[in-house]
Amino acid sequence: MVLKSYRKELWFEVPGRRGFVNITPQVESALRESGVREGLCLVNAMHITASVFINDDESGLHHDYDVWLEKLAPHEPVAGYRHNRTGEDNADAHMKRQVMGREVVVAITDGKLDFGPWEQIFYGEFDGGRRKRALIKIIGA
Amino acid sequence: MVLKSYRKELWFEVPGRRGFVNITPQVESALRESGVREGLCLVNAMHITASVFINDDESGLHHDYDVWLEKLAPHEPVAGYRHNRTGEDNADAHMKRQVMGREVVVAITDGKLDFGPWEQIFYGEFDGGRRKRALIKIIGA
Amino acid sequence: MVLKSYRKELWFEVPGRRGFVNITPQVESALRESGVREGLCLVNAMHITASVFINDDESGLHHDYDVWLEKLAPHEPVAGYRHNRTGEDNADAHMKRQVMGREVVVAITDGKLDFGPWEQIFYGEFDGGRRKRALIKIIGA
Repeated sequence: MVLKSYRKELWFEVPGRRGFVNITPQVESALRESGVREGLCLVNAMHITASVFINDDESGLHHDYDVWLEKLAPHEPVAGYRHNRTGEDNADAHMKRQVMGREVVVAITDGKLDFGPWEQIFYGEFDGGRRKRALIKIIGA
Repeated sequence: MVLKSYRKELWFEVPGRRGFVNITPQVESALRESGVREGLCLVNAMHITASVFINDDESGLHHDYDVWLEKLAPHEPVAGYRHNRTGEDNADAHMKRQVMGREVVVAITDGKLDFGPWEQIFYGEFDGGRRKRALIKIIGA
Repeated sequence: MVLKSYRKELWFEVPGRRGFVNITPQVESALRESGVREGLCLVNAMHITASVFINDDESGLHHDYDVWLEKLAPHEPVAGYRHNRTGEDNADAHMKRQVMGREVVVAITDGKLDFGPWEQIFYGEFDGGRRKRALIKIIGA
């Protein structure tokens, strides 16, 4: 087998501060475009106040994640974070992103994302209202 | 070097709600079966209420993880999570899994898992009592 | 394309208990040494009380991470963790490392780390004052 490589960017502009976007269909499209049958698929946020993670596509759960992350790393008081002295107000977003993770690596088997029954890939935005990107990188044969 | 690829599932039925299982020997077996000498080994939970992570095989530490995760994302009150309105009682398990992570990627060097002195791979169950899976995917040469 | 593989260790001795070290230049050097143009770059802590993660190189943020991690998983009281009965005092470091993560996987495109505008790679030490290592493993073509 000869090594193949494929790269694609996904762009987002999530309105409001926080939100979750199911990007599984876009990753599946990229995989088809790559022609890779066996390999690994990396999907990562290209920004440090956003996440890519795998979990369930259930709106109640996404609400729970939002409440829980805000409890673990509250946005307010903004002045409670030294990072915000730089003029930013997004220090909490840098924390939330660490809990949810920067990236996922997904196995590719027989030309498909090799997923369990409920796995879906999400872009998690914690400092929205601006254009931001995720990266898909596929290698294999 | 020609690209090789290998896939194997591990099955678990952890009694009770939560538990940690050392799966390092099974991953080492899969690596031998793959014949890969240089590459990457992905190990991921296929379920969204479970983790695969690397840490120490020390029972006191596992107790501490369990207590700590329950503090960060308590199981009770079950009705405190909107996800549980779907009839589930496992919303906390979806949180705990994000803290501990879905997957690990381990370097393969000279046909072995390229580990530091105490690294061991664990399957972390947060919603047990049912049959669930982890995936091993190895690519390399 | 023929598969290439490259391995390099980075050594650290962080004074004091905790600290963050920007290792992006060392990872870029390793990538140049590897000759890989398209592929994946794994960087992981080889110790279970340390992290490798990607975020911003801003000292205020690093201060905030330190305060936040100490709130999520306090070092004191040392006797509050069962793991510390083994004679260690670093149970909290095993928790902090799980929040920040063991590893990152970075896309390699056209011979470079395929990064967004602010992404930098850090070694995060949570139990310092001793020599410890991170591993770089690069595969691709």
